This record gives sequence, C-alpha cells and structure tokens, in this order.
Amino acid sequence: MNMIIDKLYEAAVQNSAVCIGLDTILKYLPDCIAKSGLSDCDKLFAFNKEIIDKTYDIVACYKVQIACYESLGVVGLAAYRSTLEYARSKGCVVIADVKRGDIFSTQEQYAKAHLSGDFEADIVTLNAYMGEDTIIPFEKYLGDKGLFALVKTSNPSGKDFQDLELISGEPLYIAVGRKVSEWGERSLGSCGFSNIGAVVGCTYPKEFAALKKVMPRTFFLVPGYGAQGGSAADLAEIFGDGVCGVVNSSRQILCAYKGKGDDDFAAYSRAETLKMAADLKSVIGK
Amino acid sequence: MNMIIDKLYEAAVQNSAVCIGLDTILKYLPDCIAKSGLSDCDKLFAFNKEIIDKTYDIVACYKVQIACYESLGVVGLAAYRSTLEYARSKGCVVIADVKRGDIFSTQEQYAKAHLSGDFEADIVTLNAYMGEDTIIPFEKYLGDKGLFALVKTSNPSGKDFQDLELISGEPLYIAVGRKVSEWGERSLGSCGFSNIGAVVGCTYPKEFAALKKVMPRTFFLVPGYGAQGGSAADLAEIFGDGVCGVVNSSRQILCAYKGKGDDDFAAYSRAETLKMAADLKSVIGK
Repeated sequence: MNMIIDKLYEAAVQNSAVCIGLDTILKYLPDCIAKSGLSDCDKLFAFNKEIIDKTYDIVACYKVQIACYESLGVVGLAAYRSTLEYARSKGCVVIADVKRGDIFSTQEQYAKAHLSGDFEADIVTLNAYMGEDTIIPFEKYLGDKGLFALVKTSNPSGKDFQDLELISGEPLYIAVGRKVSEWGERSLGSCGFSNIGAVVGCTYPKEFAALKKVMPRTFFLVPGYGAQGGSAADLAEIFGDGVCGVVNSSRQILCAYKGKGDDDFAAYSRAETLKMAADLKSVIGK
Repeated sequence: MNMIIDKLYEAAVQNSAVCIGLDTILKYLPDCIAKSGLSDCDKLFAFNKEIIDKTYDIVACYKVQIACYESLGVVGLAAYRSTLEYARSKGCVVIADVKRGDIFSTQEQYAKAHLSGDFEADIVTLNAYMGEDTIIPFEKYLGDKGLFALVKTSNPSGKDFQDLELISGEPLYIAVGRKVSEWGERSLGSCGFSNIGAVVGCTYPKEFAALKKVMPRTFFLVPGYGAQGGSAADLAEIFGDGVCGVVNSSRQILCAYKGKGDDDFAAYSRAETLKMAADLKSVIGK
C-alpha cells in the first residue's frame, strides 16, 4: 500500500468516489469569511480548511485547480501552498490540477515544482500534446506520486482536436488514450491500476466507454459531473465493474450553502458530498 | 502602433528577431551572484536584470519560462514577478511562457493571472489541446495583449501526437495550425500579422514551411534554435519574405559566460545575442 494509486483506490472504495475540486475563487466565499477582515490569501485558505475538515472522511481525494490561485498572484499561490499542505496533513490524496506540458527540461522543473517543495501534491495533471517528453521527467517520482494525463476533456470544444479522425479510423483521443495506457504499464499498483492515470470527462459517455476498452488498467480522473452537466447515469457503464476512477465536483459542493445559510457553509458542502457519493454508489458495480 | 503584435514586429525589424529566453535556474548563475549571499529570489532577479540591461536594445522580446521559477515555489514566483515587471518597465515585450490550457472558466482565471496583476505579461503561450475554449477567454485582452498557441513543438516527442495523420491526409499539426490561423483573423495588427500567433519549432524545417503556407498572417514564436539543434539555415525558407517571427534562445545566451569569465557574464550574453542576431539577419528577406 505504498503506491499512491493504491492509496487513492482504497479511499475511493472505503469513503466514496467523490473528488472535491477546491477551485476556490473569492466570489464563492460566504459572508462570514468574505467580510472577516482576513487577507485574500487567508480567506481562501480558511474556506478550504473548513471544507476539508468537514469532508475528508467521505471523499476519495481533493483536486486543487491552481489557476484559481495563480490569478491572485504570489498571494494566491501562498493560499494554494497552505491548502495542499493542510489537505495532505489530514492524510488525504491531493491532486494538483496544473495541466502542465512542455519540453523535457521544462517538465523536469514542473515535476520538481509540483511533486516536492512548496507546492508538493500527490498527483499532478499533465497535458501530453508535446508527447512522451511530457511524461518521462515525472517517472522518477512515480510510485509515491502519480500523474493523470489529459485524454478526452469534458468541455464543449474538447472535440475541436481530440475528436479529429485519424487515418487509422480512430479519433485522436483514442490514440492518446492508447499511448497513456502503454506508458502506464511501467508503473502498476497492487490494486491493478497504474500510477499514470487519465483525465476523461463524463460529459461524453460513449467516448468514455470506448476509451475504457483500450485502457483497462487506467484509473480515471473524471471532470464534468454536476455544474458541467454530467451525472452518475453517464458513468453507469464505466463503473459497472467497480470503481475505476474518481469523479470531480467543484462549484456544486463549494457553493452548496448559497441561498441556504452562510454560517454553516461547510455543513451544506458535506451534505452535497454525501448526496453525490450516494449517487455514484448507485452505479458502481451494478 | 497600439497593438502588441505591431510593437513586437517593429522590435523584431528594428533590433533583431532574437527572443531571449529567461529560463533562469540556479545552476546557470555565475559565482559573482551565486556566492553573493542574496536570497534565491534576489539572485535570480539580479541575474535577469543584468541580462536585460545589457541586451534590451538588441532583441525583439524576452520569453520567461515560468516553470524555472515555479520549481522554487512562492519565492521563485516572486522572482518571476520582478523579472516581468522589470523587463516591461524597460519598454520590452515580454512573453509569459506558461503553456496553459484548460476549460473556459479556468482559462478566464489564467488570462487574469498572466495578463494582469502580479504576473502581467504582454503575450502568453497557450496549449490548445482542449480546443477553442482555451482561446476565447483571452480574446477580450487581445490588442494590447497577445497569445501564441502551440502548433508544432521543437522537442523530439512532439511528433507522438502532432504528426499523426488525419483521415484528410494532413497531419494533426496542420489542422491545429489552420484553426489557430482562423482564430487569428479576428485580431489583426497593422503590420499584417495577428495578435494570435503560433509556436512552431525550427527543428522541423519542412513541417514549418508547410505550416507557413496555411498560416499566412500568423507571427511565429520559434523555439529550438541553438542548444536544441536548430540554426538560421533551418529558417531560410520561413524568413525568405521577411521577418514573420521571433526566435528564442535561452541557455546558449544565458550561459555564454561559462568557461570565459563570471564577472562580465552579461557582456558575454550580449556578444552571443549579437552573433545570433547576425545569423538570423543573414536569412531574413534573402
């Protein structure tokens, strides 16, 4: 149970397949924090800490979208650092959603940036448009650490390039999926899944099912649930054999308090998380 | 001359087509800075400031690779901020080499992050694997600001996906290039080029020539020169009609002093820049 994918799989089975996306921006903050007089950095962290405290026993992991913090500059990134550190101190698996992708020597810098030091996370998301060079510098960290490569994204224009048909008759995302699966064979956990996972949105269920066939040992990070339009029903085929991924929800959980009650904001997030956990459970292994 | 592409084009014509990549890492620093007793943040900035002071009148622009700073955490990003701020204060065009690419709402955060506030640059690099959603949030900044989308990258494994043949008979990078060119039509400068440019490496000259045909109004950010193996000869066909891009060099310029003399490190960088400028000039419009 030393491999990160085993730890993540175990949490997904024991707690739930929910991944809470801590994509916290200032307008998500309830008045009790927004008007607290704290600095922006401390506000973001105070909110995240409360959400983590109230949900860490019922989730698989947290995913932290760095863009939400990067947009506030150095101060925002200090809040990002505190958030990762706190979630990891609670024993949770933390995914840095950074989607970095560059040449070999630059990926070495990004690997160092996000798998050690200030911004140490357990797993990072990567964009592999630049090929295998984007993956190799991360390999020396694999085991303790993991990565999820973008394959078929949840957004409407994901199709612009990902769905282009290749001369082989397959769409590009299948070719990317095969390659990610092949890279993943180098680092398998005892749960049967690889420390190299894939990002596949649940907003395109048919495409997801096709991908799962060519990626049998790949664990998935699944965006698109909730605010983006995806539901557990879209995951029925994928999760039919058991848990093979974690499903992210951000806004719907973080802002669950809106229109209900500011002071208990994290309690509403917990209730929303439990609701989503039950929704996912209804299709796992069925 | 209010558009950033006009300012960049003008600098490329007047000064040179050289883009210095300030991809500064600690091991690049000469002893006079490395042993100065300054903090790591101040060392990186002191080095960059000296390079900028000695070269800003002979280059088209600077490109700052954020990964080199991100790897040092919050302190590194403070040096990144100071570097962008200083280069811009000298009137130079600054490209933030961040290669971000995500869903619409996340790209809004990245646009805010890199075109305003702490990390304000003039132009950012983007990864468009996730389609048009990666571009649109940047459009409201275009004019004053610009972007370069990855099309055909300079690294060996760029071919893994970018060179896959589509059913149309064209490789993927041509399809991406066409799309970037089409997006660029929305924001043309008076120099005839668009504020939406493209990253195309000079390590694949034939592919570059094919791309130029389908991207007539696109200005290029060209990596791959020098340490990565590319030369002016590889750019002869591209630059035959005149300057249509800027060519990046990092290590070869930053580390020009190595084995020569630490104290005058920036003077060696200037000499190396002038050499590269002459090399590029030898093929422009020829």
